[in-house]
Amino acid sequence: MMIYLNNTPLDEVLGGFLKELGDYRFNSIETISVIDGLDRVLAENIFAKRSVPHYHSSAMDGYQVRAEDTKTANIDNPIFLSMEKIKYCDTGEPIEPQFDSVIKIEDVHKRDNGIEIIGGATKWQNIRPIGEDITAHDLLFTTGRKLQPMDIAALIASGIYQIKVFKKPKVAIIPTGDEIIPWNKEPMIGEIPDSNSQLFANMVKKWGGEPTVYPITPDNFDLLEKVVKNAWEENDLILVNAGSSAGSEDYTSKVINHLGKVYYHGVAIKPGKPAIFGKIGKKPVIGVPGYPVSAFVVMEELVKKVFLYLKGEKVPERKKVEGKLTKPVNSDLKFQEYVRVKVGKIGKEYVITPLARGAALMSTVTQGDGFLIIPQNSEGYRAGEMVQVELFTEKDFDNTFVSIGSHDLALDILATHLAPKFNLSSAHVGSLGGIMAVKKGETHFAGIHLLDPQTGQYNISYVKKYLKGTGAVLIHLAKRTQGLMVAKGNPLNIKSIKDLKGRTIANRQKGAGTRVLLDYLMEKENIKPEEVEGYTREFFTHLAVAQEVKSGRADAAMGIYAATKGMDLHFVPLYQESYDLIVSPEFYYSPNFKSILEVLSSEKFRREVEELGGYNLDKSGEIIFVEGEKN
Amino acid sequence: MMIYLNNTPLDEVLGGFLKELGDYRFNSIETISVIDGLDRVLAENIFAKRSVPHYHSSAMDGYQVRAEDTKTANIDNPIFLSMEKIKYCDTGEPIEPQFDSVIKIEDVHKRDNGIEIIGGATKWQNIRPIGEDITAHDLLFTTGRKLQPMDIAALIASGIYQIKVFKKPKVAIIPTGDEIIPWNKEPMIGEIPDSNSQLFANMVKKWGGEPTVYPITPDNFDLLEKVVKNAWEENDLILVNAGSSAGSEDYTSKVINHLGKVYYHGVAIKPGKPAIFGKIGKKPVIGVPGYPVSAFVVMEELVKKVFLYLKGEKVPERKKVEGKLTKPVNSDLKFQEYVRVKVGKIGKEYVITPLARGAALMSTVTQGDGFLIIPQNSEGYRAGEMVQVELFTEKDFDNTFVSIGSHDLALDILATHLAPKFNLSSAHVGSLGGIMAVKKGETHFAGIHLLDPQTGQYNISYVKKYLKGTGAVLIHLAKRTQGLMVAKGNPLNIKSIKDLKGRTIANRQKGAGTRVLLDYLMEKENIKPEEVEGYTREFFTHLAVAQEVKSGRADAAMGIYAATKGMDLHFVPLYQESYDLIVSPEFYYSPNFKSILEVLSSEKFRREVEELGGYNLDKSGEIIFVEGEKN
Repeated sequence: MMIYLNNTPLDEVLGGFLKELGDYRFNSIETISVIDGLDRVLAENIFAKRSVPHYHSSAMDGYQVRAEDTKTANIDNPIFLSMEKIKYCDTGEPIEPQFDSVIKIEDVHKRDNGIEIIGGATKWQNIRPIGEDITAHDLLFTTGRKLQPMDIAALIASGIYQIKVFKKPKVAIIPTGDEIIPWNKEPMIGEIPDSNSQLFANMVKKWGGEPTVYPITPDNFDLLEKVVKNAWEENDLILVNAGSSAGSEDYTSKVINHLGKVYYHGVAIKPGKPAIFGKIGKKPVIGVPGYPVSAFVVMEELVKKVFLYLKGEKVPERKKVEGKLTKPVNSDLKFQEYVRVKVGKIGKEYVITPLARGAALMSTVTQGDGFLIIPQNSEGYRAGEMVQVELFTEKDFDNTFVSIGSHDLALDILATHLAPKFNLSSAHVGSLGGIMAVKKGETHFAGIHLLDPQTGQYNISYVKKYLKGTGAVLIHLAKRTQGLMVAKGNPLNIKSIKDLKGRTIANRQKGAGTRVLLDYLMEKENIKPEEVEGYTREFFTHLAVAQEVKSGRADAAMGIYAATKGMDLHFVPLYQESYDLIVSPEFYYSPNFKSILEVLSSEKFRREVEELGGYNLDKSGEIIFVEGEKN
Repeated sequence: MMIYLNNTPLDEVLGGFLKELGDYRFNSIETISVIDGLDRVLAENIFAKRSVPHYHSSAMDGYQVRAEDTKTANIDNPIFLSMEKIKYCDTGEPIEPQFDSVIKIEDVHKRDNGIEIIGGATKWQNIRPIGEDITAHDLLFTTGRKLQPMDIAALIASGIYQIKVFKKPKVAIIPTGDEIIPWNKEPMIGEIPDSNSQLFANMVKKWGGEPTVYPITPDNFDLLEKVVKNAWEENDLILVNAGSSAGSEDYTSKVINHLGKVYYHGVAIKPGKPAIFGKIGKKPVIGVPGYPVSAFVVMEELVKKVFLYLKGEKVPERKKVEGKLTKPVNSDLKFQEYVRVKVGKIGKEYVITPLARGAALMSTVTQGDGFLIIPQNSEGYRAGEMVQVELFTEKDFDNTFVSIGSHDLALDILATHLAPKFNLSSAHVGSLGGIMAVKKGETHFAGIHLLDPQTGQYNISYVKKYLKGTGAVLIHLAKRTQGLMVAKGNPLNIKSIKDLKGRTIANRQKGAGTRVLLDYLMEKENIKPEEVEGYTREFFTHLAVAQEVKSGRADAAMGIYAATKGMDLHFVPLYQESYDLIVSPEFYYSPNFKSILEVLSSEKFRREVEELGGYNLDKSGEIIFVEGEKN
């Protein structure tokens, strides 16, 4: 059954492929020293070689006696036992054959040449008999036990020095593609550093496997076949990276079909569709897609399950949280979709914010917290719906501040000052988006910089207008200079807003404070959006528009001075604005907010932000305005 | 504030000690290659050095075009674009400067010298712009981030090759005591192999530390002081094992007080009381008790918390389950007690069985699943109460069979046949205890061998009597030979029950089938318990009584032949009995029970048990009797 770039449901691919693998298992065995056994899986049943304890021993510091000699002792009739009738012992010391009981040192009065006792001892009291813990020949552990620290101690105590464990399964990782270069080489245009192989290798390590990354193989059938053959001999599972979509130079499925057989090509998941599942001899050979997030999903949802199945282990369930979705998520009916989301905990409720969907966006995994999995045949979810998220981070949400609003580099510096005690989880949706997030209780705070064209005043009128009844505290963060970013040396001689006419710009998204400012200034100069090329193409951060100017794609962009500095661009200052934080009253009065206020008013923080250029933080941390609380 | 072997509550010790440690932290830093970064903790904030992608690239396999050239195309008016106006590109290939859009290969009709399209392209469509994923200078990660596979891939992609991480904290483990010998040396009487150091080393590894086990130091103040001094210079945290109770040769607290200061000696926990918390210079030096379970509790509840605090990490919470307690647990009001328990899942409910309490019993940790923590000032819990357990295993309770009843070696063999797919969690409480466990729904099945003195028949009358209304299926496991275990060569010439008069025996506990048989045979011979020495001293397994005979502590013991074999004892056969399993009806009809039946009737299993000697398994797996179900 060979299916070419089909769209087979995930469960069908997984179930069918495991069936095709038949009785193949990762079951090579090696003998190791027990002290190297941590987290290794036993490949044998182990019976104790020695009893623990292996001699009758004292359970206390005290005196060994014969119980018979002590029978008549009581508080009124103390008994004196001479040195020949007793023997001192520390805890763990052996009981000598003539004794059968131990009296605790606390219950004994030391006398010259002996002891006095005021109570009789019973036979075997305070004695640990041979085998009390483990008896020789006891079954200690069965095959499949993943050894923990106390297991290893018990093995040692019962005389086991060598153990048979399953070898760590060997996984070949074969990067392919003419465009791929070694991970630590500086890439030219068109070259892509091989970061995927390290992603795979580290995932395999986390699953308990032993990865080997093979040299990068160019897009060439014969070369790839040679490497796959070679890897097949040396490994238990073979992963070929990319060459798995239906493009012109995808040799992976051809090579597998030549050496063995492809069973599935194309899984109904997104991202991750163009995965290949085949077999050469008895060993699985899997083609993993090239886009990092596609690869991540295929590794997590398919390769990991195949790997653990062949290892005889259960797939651990991801931790789940349920929370309110902040934005609608539409889904293609054809696929089971893996939407990466950020999770925030506001008060006692979880808030789920979907991230961008692109299969290439590694940042959606590194900045995300989990998957919102949308089943095939589902159209998705509405904003405000309660949804369940499967977490792939172990973040402590109680110590994570959520910041949804305008982007400013000062927030990044704030994050570095809050770490490692607190995390800052930021989403950049612009100033107006931030206000709405505060209103809906979806964020702890929001950075905003919104000019009121009527009054020339920043932020306050917006808070009054939108957060009446919700309540909010407006805290000043910084004065900062907005202006036009242009190429180094300003070759087009752009000096003011007027000069944008007929030029190409990189614009910020609707609702961003910078966009509001640009629109305000353009209107003042009577420039229509149609007169500026690129006006409708939107970016979400200052650095992103700066990057557009740097690459020559745009002639100019509105933004803050600090974003131009690292890029070596020219800056035309135009306006000084106030960048402030809106804080929900609940959060403002919570003990955690103190940590933020402390940073805002610290000299170190102010200096670091001002060093970015174009900032003034003299008054950061001051309360500007308080909107009455919800009642 | 120096407290000598006090009984300070755990929270007070922990809180007070962390306070004494002041600003001391594990904060040494090292620079490593990013590809060695898995699970390491960043000691710096990292900003991207390179945008990802670092050039405008095609998001699809297709043709680069100028959007302007395609404007008028629609299904009725296809447009032909000649080779000069297009360029083929695979996914990821760079967009050439003259183009601004990509048309998917699926939407193109290849013609000679060009392509035909039936729809216009919009600017930037299917193009991944520079920095779409990560923009140069973006804050990628802050200090304290524990790097995961995708983090490392993102670091590589954005041009980061070296990273600063916190060094793994170095922990010294100093074993002390004249009786301690290296872990892999065969111990003489009075010698104890050093298994604790491996326990500590592996726990430290699990916490992310780097343990060093020092040579064993004898009980000598000067020698210990020298080793501690040395370890102090080379490590971030020092653990001294044992020498921490109040016995005669405990130098640990003296040495700490000489080089620094002891703050706490004695914690109100059980086991674990005699722990020592001190400081030399700024570094913590902790005396951990010698009994393995005391040590385990102190490591888990105190040392781990100190370690993670100094590392700047939160202590992960243990998973918890709530279940019904099968036996009462009484607790000393003076201590917070850590009772090790087994957890079973019967149907949908958890059943909690407390294990023996001894501080030396490693098996209570290796065979246990979690702690039942009884607070100070609590008297404990009644049988049947719902209690919460903090798990220290990751066992899959859905695939764990609970067997509470009589002990037989065949159950151990059964366990090895069920592994690794299923675990068998056995508790040995004797046949009658097993029947009661079935009645109360606390076990999946119970092994029993109970002679009815009236009829000479085994088991059936007991099931009828005790499980009327509950229902039960009685499955045959084995015929086995009971008899007297005596020393090799039978020096006392013990040939029958009569010969026990005046001898010392090792007896089984009340309710054990073997005990019932002994009592039956003694009564038949008119021997009274008082006429047999050791009659009241009870053991819970065949191997345990065999061990008593082997050590010369007892002259004889009733038991099965198989238990004498490994011990090289002489066996006097007396009686053939039937060892059967009672299975609850619910479990009998569950799909999992099939796996047990399959083993019972397999040739391999029968052969392995019969090879133990004294067994006949011709009919194992057959139903003997069915007691009507509960209605």
